[in-house]
Amino acid sequence: MKPDAHWLRRTVLTLAVVAISVAPTAAETASSEWKVTDFLLSNGMEVVIIPDRRAPIVTHMVWYKVGSADELPGKSGIAHFFEHLMFKATTSHATGEFDRAVAAIGGSNNAFTSYDYTAFHETVAPEALEQMMGFEADRMRNLILNDEVIATERDVVLEERRSRVDSNPDALLEEEVSATLYQNQPYRIPVIGWMQEIEKLNKTDAKLFYDRYYTPNNAVLVVAGDVEPDAVKAMAERTYGKVARGPDLPPRLRPVEPEQNTMRAVTLTDARVNVPSFSTQWVVPSYNTAKPGEAEALDLLAEILGGGSRSRLYQELVVKKGIAASAGASFAGTMLDDTSFSVYGAPRGDASLDQVEEAVKAEVVRIARDGVSADELEKAKNRFVRSMIFARDRQSSMANIYGSTLATGGTVEDVEKWPERIRKATAEDVRAAARYLVPDHATTGYLLPEAQTGN
Amino acid sequence: MKPDAHWLRRTVLTLAVVAISVAPTAAETASSEWKVTDFLLSNGMEVVIIPDRRAPIVTHMVWYKVGSADELPGKSGIAHFFEHLMFKATTSHATGEFDRAVAAIGGSNNAFTSYDYTAFHETVAPEALEQMMGFEADRMRNLILNDEVIATERDVVLEERRSRVDSNPDALLEEEVSATLYQNQPYRIPVIGWMQEIEKLNKTDAKLFYDRYYTPNNAVLVVAGDVEPDAVKAMAERTYGKVARGPDLPPRLRPVEPEQNTMRAVTLTDARVNVPSFSTQWVVPSYNTAKPGEAEALDLLAEILGGGSRSRLYQELVVKKGIAASAGASFAGTMLDDTSFSVYGAPRGDASLDQVEEAVKAEVVRIARDGVSADELEKAKNRFVRSMIFARDRQSSMANIYGSTLATGGTVEDVEKWPERIRKATAEDVRAAARYLVPDHATTGYLLPEAQTGN
Repeated sequence: MKPDAHWLRRTVLTLAVVAISVAPTAAETASSEWKVTDFLLSNGMEVVIIPDRRAPIVTHMVWYKVGSADELPGKSGIAHFFEHLMFKATTSHATGEFDRAVAAIGGSNNAFTSYDYTAFHETVAPEALEQMMGFEADRMRNLILNDEVIATERDVVLEERRSRVDSNPDALLEEEVSATLYQNQPYRIPVIGWMQEIEKLNKTDAKLFYDRYYTPNNAVLVVAGDVEPDAVKAMAERTYGKVARGPDLPPRLRPVEPEQNTMRAVTLTDARVNVPSFSTQWVVPSYNTAKPGEAEALDLLAEILGGGSRSRLYQELVVKKGIAASAGASFAGTMLDDTSFSVYGAPRGDASLDQVEEAVKAEVVRIARDGVSADELEKAKNRFVRSMIFARDRQSSMANIYGSTLATGGTVEDVEKWPERIRKATAEDVRAAARYLVPDHATTGYLLPEAQTGN
Repeated sequence: MKPDAHWLRRTVLTLAVVAISVAPTAAETASSEWKVTDFLLSNGMEVVIIPDRRAPIVTHMVWYKVGSADELPGKSGIAHFFEHLMFKATTSHATGEFDRAVAAIGGSNNAFTSYDYTAFHETVAPEALEQMMGFEADRMRNLILNDEVIATERDVVLEERRSRVDSNPDALLEEEVSATLYQNQPYRIPVIGWMQEIEKLNKTDAKLFYDRYYTPNNAVLVVAGDVEPDAVKAMAERTYGKVARGPDLPPRLRPVEPEQNTMRAVTLTDARVNVPSFSTQWVVPSYNTAKPGEAEALDLLAEILGGGSRSRLYQELVVKKGIAASAGASFAGTMLDDTSFSVYGAPRGDASLDQVEEAVKAEVVRIARDGVSADELEKAKNRFVRSMIFARDRQSSMANIYGSTLATGGTVEDVEKWPERIRKATAEDVRAAARYLVPDHATTGYLLPEAQTGN
């Protein structure tokens, strides 16, 4: 991966939230401009084509349905390791050749890893699309995985972990909070991997993982841009179509979370922290595990409670009371397994972290008890619709929505009908969703400056 | 298993502590009364014979080197499930036949499961030893595992979980504390299994587990009692010796724990709790993972800090200050992987839980800073030696020591040299061991009555 690639949870969450907030409705896609084409190659590779004629560029993404939550015990980091290894030499191309080809035509490329998927993408002129497909199809199966490549790239990943996690109190806390929130589900394990396990990843681990997961029948190709579906299909067949189907994979059934009976707190105290902050999380259903309508209600709940400057938390704590520098809520819905809902805040001025936490908790209790007003709900739905319009302005957002949904158990139809399902959500659905937020059965992370004592 | 069988962590810890505190020294075993015989059958089964001529009884135990920490992800509870299934019908004996045979001769029998092993044992007259071996050798490989047996016994285990864990605030808290303390090691997962995973255990899971782990080359036979080694050897060859060797198992290498950077708290509030209590734990090396001398120092540290009524915690908090109803420390050393060291306490009279926790923490800080005195160390070593003498009085204790040590990576020599190694420990070793007890990087469980607020 490249220096700016993102694998951190925070970034993934943001992507998921944006993704979910921007899908076009059936009505809004009446114009053929947004008509999405979806088909399978004969080797099982899924292809999604999203026409976008506003500019002569194309976003080309390959999503592998494998992420850190699919790793074997003790092998954490192997999924993210491939985000690096995929940029090394193949039997046809030297290390760096793909990058140089993209740069030579003024394009950009990168990759990212999450709990449920690993994706590789390029943004280039449409003329270069087939060339990109050729490179991607090549590295899907032809990577040279030898001890030297493994050792070199493992050192790079170890250094990445040192600089991004071990030197960063926020990231260190986040890791231990996740491992405390999820006691059985593999989202407990950090995407980058535990240091002591990354250190031991070897050629055997890499080959096993590559041969199992890097196959056309475990991948989704997403192409968004100024392209003709028929032409893209022909190119995909000429490139990816030549890659042999891999072994069939069993359903992605992972350990699930037991009921939480306790209140859990994880506190990191560090001299590098200036402003204290907290984040309280609950395990809740994702779009893939929820009952119909439930995940949509959780999305609206997060929006109304803490989705932005119009939200209750922001208005109450930041604007009216003036005690918080920040306060909000978020729901990471686009996940294969049960996911997290969080509320967070940080004090401002003379206010204490306790005060902010109490005020946030009071809002959580209030929304679960009294629900939301018709007006709030309508405005939240409207904000979601408006956010779609913004999202469409970025071709890559559309590609991300389809890719992340398809890689986490969803379908093209799920994306297209999402706004319709959001519109159907009632105030009672939102209040019911808020019942997941049990104050005494939550997990809270506290980030504290050295001088301050614990919660 | 039988109603009084123990699998709960607390019980296992107690066993481990007793086990470690009672091994005879080389000098003390000079009399041939305690000369232990150790050999392998040709199928790989290890046999340990501990002569004990004081009474005409014999303790017969089979220890399988498999426990809950060896389970596959999502299959928690399968190891403990076998504690039940092993009492069902085999191809040679009906369900209950073994139990009735033991009862008919006035013997007793039972089984228990831990993170690292599963053991089955009978106490009978020496004349019945070969019969016991016959039954045990039979059920090692000849269990009838069909859907009906699985379904019936699974219901029994589910009911066991409901009554022992889900109806017990202490046990519920303990589960979530363990899963918070261990974020990567499998000691995170409860021995009995998570409810939602026990419910799904099936015949395929059981057969796989049985064929993999229930083999002579994965078992240790321990016989303690009024027996002649040569006679026992002949009997073992006639019974266990006929069981075919199983597949070789890979080394028991499990995921290890990352460094802990946070303070973690897990609070369970429940109306059934009368007196609040807390327990703070740290992950520390076990006898199997420690550097030479380190685990012995941890054992002595636990003894001096909180091993009984002579310990610092008891003397300070219960006797002098009178603020605690209980206060102590323990170290679960006999484990395959890194294990836990804990300190705990509960208030008395008007004292608050906070007061007790602060006083315990102060003693932890003091022992890590100032170490222990020569006199304290000498007395603790003497108490260990005395506890051995008591332990010898129970034949089953000796069998437990050898069995648990051999099932967690140790040898007969490790058991025999243990008192010698304890005697070599210095005050500096104990102080060095106390450095694991970092106050800000610990995991604390709080059990609170409904009325009281959190920590």
